[in-house]
Amino acid sequence: MSDKIQINNIYLEKLKLYIKKKDSSKLAKIISTLHAADIAEIIEYLSDEQAKYFYQLIKNEQDSAAVLIELEDNTRENLMKGLSAKKIAEEVIENLATDDAADIIGELSEVKKKQVLSHIEDFQHASGISDLLSYAENTAGSLMEKELIKVNKDWNTLQCLKEMRKQANNIKNVYTIYVVDDKEKLLGLMSLRRLLLTKKTTAIKDIMFTDIISVTTNQKNEEAANLMQKYDLVVLPVTNNSGKLLGRITFDDIMDVTKEEAEKDYQMASGISEDVESKDSVWELTRARLPWLLIGMLGGLFGAKVIGGFNLKTSFELALFIPLIAAMGGNVGIQSAAIVVQGLANNSLKLENVAQKLLKELVVALVNGIICSVIIFIAAFTLGYSTNLSTAVSISLLTVTIFAALFGTFIPLTLKKNNIDPALATGPFITTINDVLGLFIYFWIGQAIL
Amino acid sequence: MSDKIQINNIYLEKLKLYIKKKDSSKLAKIISTLHAADIAEIIEYLSDEQAKYFYQLIKNEQDSAAVLIELEDNTRENLMKGLSAKKIAEEVIENLATDDAADIIGELSEVKKKQVLSHIEDFQHASGISDLLSYAENTAGSLMEKELIKVNKDWNTLQCLKEMRKQANNIKNVYTIYVVDDKEKLLGLMSLRRLLLTKKTTAIKDIMFTDIISVTTNQKNEEAANLMQKYDLVVLPVTNNSGKLLGRITFDDIMDVTKEEAEKDYQMASGISEDVESKDSVWELTRARLPWLLIGMLGGLFGAKVIGGFNLKTSFELALFIPLIAAMGGNVGIQSAAIVVQGLANNSLKLENVAQKLLKELVVALVNGIICSVIIFIAAFTLGYSTNLSTAVSISLLTVTIFAALFGTFIPLTLKKNNIDPALATGPFITTINDVLGLFIYFWIGQAIL
Repeated sequence: MSDKIQINNIYLEKLKLYIKKKDSSKLAKIISTLHAADIAEIIEYLSDEQAKYFYQLIKNEQDSAAVLIELEDNTRENLMKGLSAKKIAEEVIENLATDDAADIIGELSEVKKKQVLSHIEDFQHASGISDLLSYAENTAGSLMEKELIKVNKDWNTLQCLKEMRKQANNIKNVYTIYVVDDKEKLLGLMSLRRLLLTKKTTAIKDIMFTDIISVTTNQKNEEAANLMQKYDLVVLPVTNNSGKLLGRITFDDIMDVTKEEAEKDYQMASGISEDVESKDSVWELTRARLPWLLIGMLGGLFGAKVIGGFNLKTSFELALFIPLIAAMGGNVGIQSAAIVVQGLANNSLKLENVAQKLLKELVVALVNGIICSVIIFIAAFTLGYSTNLSTAVSISLLTVTIFAALFGTFIPLTLKKNNIDPALATGPFITTINDVLGLFIYFWIGQAIL
Repeated sequence: MSDKIQINNIYLEKLKLYIKKKDSSKLAKIISTLHAADIAEIIEYLSDEQAKYFYQLIKNEQDSAAVLIELEDNTRENLMKGLSAKKIAEEVIENLATDDAADIIGELSEVKKKQVLSHIEDFQHASGISDLLSYAENTAGSLMEKELIKVNKDWNTLQCLKEMRKQANNIKNVYTIYVVDDKEKLLGLMSLRRLLLTKKTTAIKDIMFTDIISVTTNQKNEEAANLMQKYDLVVLPVTNNSGKLLGRITFDDIMDVTKEEAEKDYQMASGISEDVESKDSVWELTRARLPWLLIGMLGGLFGAKVIGGFNLKTSFELALFIPLIAAMGGNVGIQSAAIVVQGLANNSLKLENVAQKLLKELVVALVNGIICSVIIFIAAFTLGYSTNLSTAVSISLLTVTIFAALFGTFIPLTLKKNNIDPALATGPFITTINDVLGLFIYFWIGQAIL
């Protein structure tokens, strides 16, 4: 039984010491008790040199292939650098399921890709992998694995068991048995439980479950994820357009997709494009952020123009509340946009019921705006600012709040309608628009009153 | 085979027409072809009255219980209003697994809770549910279900099969068979596949898998989610502190937890407290947003104080770039905080390797800051602003960028160290601090130069 280890500083320091001393027997012993996911986590904490040494101590080929899959892209690249195509094919790819194998081969150069594929001895494995490589990223086809157990509708449960015995070695988790006709068309499902509890001579077609939910290879991976989540499916069959069974998607792939989607939305809302992690290079991190900062700067320059367009000398006190107006417009806009983006992402909000949403958003903004503008009037007045200034700030705040809420709701919906990712509308994009608009409203109202 | 339906406007209008005409036979026929998750989705689009009528047309008790589980809290409450404790127990609870049943009973008043429990006829079911109700929210215990298949280590596979036949009726998905000793202590696992492929007289203890990953009832639900994700587990056993098997958590519960966590972080980053959805009431939506707006307003008032502290009359041009400086400080701060919060959430960043993260963040901020400040100097100068003003804005921008990055990194890390949700550090909180600080830096540098 593998111990549940705590990968903390003390544990890591101990390992690093063994690595420094090149104590390979001790390390190999430790490794043999660890789960691949834990080995991968440890490797992420090591330097490139340490990682290489540690990795080659994994004795079992299946384990080292499994570790490779769990690693971050950069780390994996480091460990695979220098491995010949033949070694990759024999030691890594042959020990992986088709989907993991395709992921790894997909990261190689075109030349090396072909070399590795040509070195895979198991013809079926190789052709399965190249099939998977042909599907576009973000499609259900690119998520699936070819490994599954299928039986013919005309068999009985005994034949089915025999076939399973033959096929089961290639598959880590069976979950479901697929029933197909002679042309491999998907007709139904059968659970292992049913197989266990039914008489041996029963025909499969009499006991199979025909209420199948499936996707085709060219559907989006998000659609597959939504279906599996909606219907709580642990595994989802994938067919071609004429219903031929080609593969299956398992829940763990979907968890990854869901997580990545959520992280992407979160990053967008925070003004970070591309998919970056804290361990990426300085240049990658910089590049992911710069576009949004530039948008913010552009907005700032517009803001300067707006302010400069009014006679600042005669009403310089208005400058005092510029930060307040800008911040409130931005905050309200992001709040509204976030609710819409999230509603669209988890399917609780659809383009079908948009009109009432807009109205509701307006009411919420109105309530918040009224509360805030009353408070700010009292606060500003109490702090000794003039009645006129307090009034101007208060009225502007209410106006800005309503506009910001409308934009915050409208922009993501419009993007969605035009098939652009609505998450784009959150973060710096909406803040910037609201900043500029807010300033204009504020100065316009301000100069009218002062 | 249930058709894959498209729940769109046309479909909904058709249904609403049947509901209006009280065409119960047509509706019942439609319902009988639908999956519970689809019925629930449809109900969410109906008015309270329509929903009640539609819901009572579901003939099959198991289906109506399943639909109830899939609904949003408010909608479920509406449908259950007026149901007697006896009806809830007999028609709903008896048709649900313990975890779903506990979720529904948990929403009832204390009095009704007891009444419903007393009306459940199956004693084991009732005691399972009240056991689940005793675990604190956010613990693994509150996520688990009592339904599972367990066999004794001393049995052989034939006895195991017999026991399965007995237990399997209560369980929708088996996934794994748990092996326990006479005291119900969890010793190992066995897959259905192994059971299918092994000789009937083999002792369970000789073929069970003892490399078990499990949690105890009082561990956090996030820990359970992380374990299942890390090790790609479809199901996770839950024990008490002495290892007695009490229940299991399935992948669909974990998907929900992960999704909720991600949504919560996203909402926090967008300045929305509490867990709200676009369909919640106006008052709930208002209450969730107001705190952040108030924080923003407080920041704005501080900002006014900071600006007022300098002699604005003599250097009123500085006002022009207030929005730019404030926006940039906010944007950089949120970018940095988001990377840290996400790193902490997905475990790629730990308190172990913080020092190097801080340094890296500083370098990224420096690179971004230098690029932006060069651009803004050229832009401002080209647009005709004075050299002094352009210089002041440029230098301030660089300084603000670096400070904002430091705060953005430091604050979430400090919160995490003190066991406060680091996501709090994103959104309005950090923007506000950076706004005020940025203004101070800007005016200080600006007045020194102008």
